Amino acid sequence: MPSASALNAPHVVVDWGTTSFRAVLLAADGTQRDRIETGDGIQFVEKHAFEDRLLALLAPWLAAEGPLDIVLVGMVTSRNGWIEVPYVPCPCSVEDLAKGTITRTLANGSRTILLAGINDPARAPFPDVMRGEETQIVGFGLADDATLVLPGTHSKWARVAGGRISGFRTFVTGEFFALLTQHSFIARAAAGSESAGEDMAAFERGIADGSPEGAEGDAMLSLVFAARTGMLAGKLAPGEIRDYVSGLLIAQEFRQARNCGFFARSEFSKGNRIGIVGNDGLNRRYAIVARHFGLDVVEGSDHAAIDGARQILAAAKGDLT
Amino acid sequence: MPSASALNAPHVVVDWGTTSFRAVLLAADGTQRDRIETGDGIQFVEKHAFEDRLLALLAPWLAAEGPLDIVLVGMVTSRNGWIEVPYVPCPCSVEDLAKGTITRTLANGSRTILLAGINDPARAPFPDVMRGEETQIVGFGLADDATLVLPGTHSKWARVAGGRISGFRTFVTGEFFALLTQHSFIARAAAGSESAGEDMAAFERGIADGSPEGAEGDAMLSLVFAARTGMLAGKLAPGEIRDYVSGLLIAQEFRQARNCGFFARSEFSKGNRIGIVGNDGLNRRYAIVARHFGLDVVEGSDHAAIDGARQILAAAKGDLT
Repeated sequence: MPSASALNAPHVVVDWGTTSFRAVLLAADGTQRDRIETGDGIQFVEKHAFEDRLLALLAPWLAAEGPLDIVLVGMVTSRNGWIEVPYVPCPCSVEDLAKGTITRTLANGSRTILLAGINDPARAPFPDVMRGEETQIVGFGLADDATLVLPGTHSKWARVAGGRISGFRTFVTGEFFALLTQHSFIARAAAGSESAGEDMAAFERGIADGSPEGAEGDAMLSLVFAARTGMLAGKLAPGEIRDYVSGLLIAQEFRQARNCGFFARSEFSKGNRIGIVGNDGLNRRYAIVARHFGLDVVEGSDHAAIDGARQILAAAKGDLT
Repeated sequence: MPSASALNAPHVVVDWGTTSFRAVLLAADGTQRDRIETGDGIQFVEKHAFEDRLLALLAPWLAAEGPLDIVLVGMVTSRNGWIEVPYVPCPCSVEDLAKGTITRTLANGSRTILLAGINDPARAPFPDVMRGEETQIVGFGLADDATLVLPGTHSKWARVAGGRISGFRTFVTGEFFALLTQHSFIARAAAGSESAGEDMAAFERGIADGSPEGAEGDAMLSLVFAARTGMLAGKLAPGEIRDYVSGLLIAQEFRQARNCGFFARSEFSKGNRIGIVGNDGLNRRYAIVARHFGLDVVEGSDHAAIDGARQILAAAKGDLT
């Protein structure tokens, strides 16, 4: 695996998403020197205006440092962004990801390196996709075989094997949680309790009810109705429903990941390890559920995305120079 | 089972729900003589005002016929309605349902008979509930053992055995469909195609993808992401997404009903019968999915709700007179 020491000058990593622009200026050794965050998401930028906007947003750094390597990650590399970078197919190594980048030299001599997303052609009925999370996976590390989960609106389960990302699968758990708690019968039942603090006891009850021993747990469309029947039975208070449903859905995600073959069923509850990577505030909840399923948890670094971008940049440097 | 001939005078059946009031005037033999439908849902009626509103809405019939037996079904019998009728527990017969009714004599000498909903104390983690669908099940018939599905926002799977409703389970499939197609990433992808007609070919593709042979089908949280990956792969057009997701979710409902034990797994695809009861426009879709799973379909009558109300009324008459 390329080491971060392959970089020998300051550089920039930009996570440019639909609604925000977040850049970090890094020293050659990866030390963070400065940070710029704005609301200039790609939805507000015309297709032809990305270069000018990028140079304007980074002007203070470019004035001080001269031309820089600028790694771009996120939806800026999608069809709706600046340049669509084709997906790199699994299984893929850091070198494959480096080869999949697209480089543009800018007016001031800086180079932007747009990272590729990845897809998994082995998934049915259609290849699965991610764009951005693969950088976090690289930052977590590809040296040891591992199973990882990256919690989020669309969380990603990935396998690392033989120094490569060997495959992955998306679970839309976070989106279901938002839909149920904002727009459904559950939203109406919980109305008025939004400002209540976290109720981790209700979360734990949701985990237990979301993955019972028996076959009833294989019917998610039915299980979530417990949010209503629990109220009717006087066993769930309005203020408990959000965290109860959160636990129930994340437990279902783990159960379904197990049932669909992400772990061998026989191994799932026997001390398998799982890496949890991400920074959307859900890692603690996923760790609790993972332990409920008997898994050993390895928590990823908060800097996984930047570490991964630096590794891919380092591997790409040979092609760039 | 009590026969409809036990009734010897005209009577009224009212389905009084949250947003609508629907009444039918029936001859003693069940022939429909008249119909009144208004938007006077229970949410617009003060607790103390139900009797006056009912007498006002039915005034033409009461003037012509004199006092009548008026069966009330639906949310008017719930906590938010006129009088909360306690749930009758499964297993329950027509006689049990008749005993569970609450009768009020009105100012003009009419009698209202409020029907009970039912619950299933055997369900985990909390007793499941229905209020209204049990009347349709009675109308379908309790004489022969059967498995029934009543499609809807919250569809109900029920078992009939030994002349009783022996148990049931709710699946919130219709609610998930509405959430996904109105508020989620799927809504955004399908935007602009709402006015397209039914695409039953897309529906059939959704069925196939929603219940593949392998274990991948046991991960609904992941399968629904196919609505996005199919678009990205150029295999799903915006106009196909709604019906594709409809097929996928209903297929998941059947798969989960099988997996959670509603049918013995070994029997599910060997010509088991399933009754489909209801009138919310989904019966045709449920019949297609049922046949995909190898089930023989028995379609219920459009009049199941009225037939059931008449049977319960007939059984209750002994207590009333």
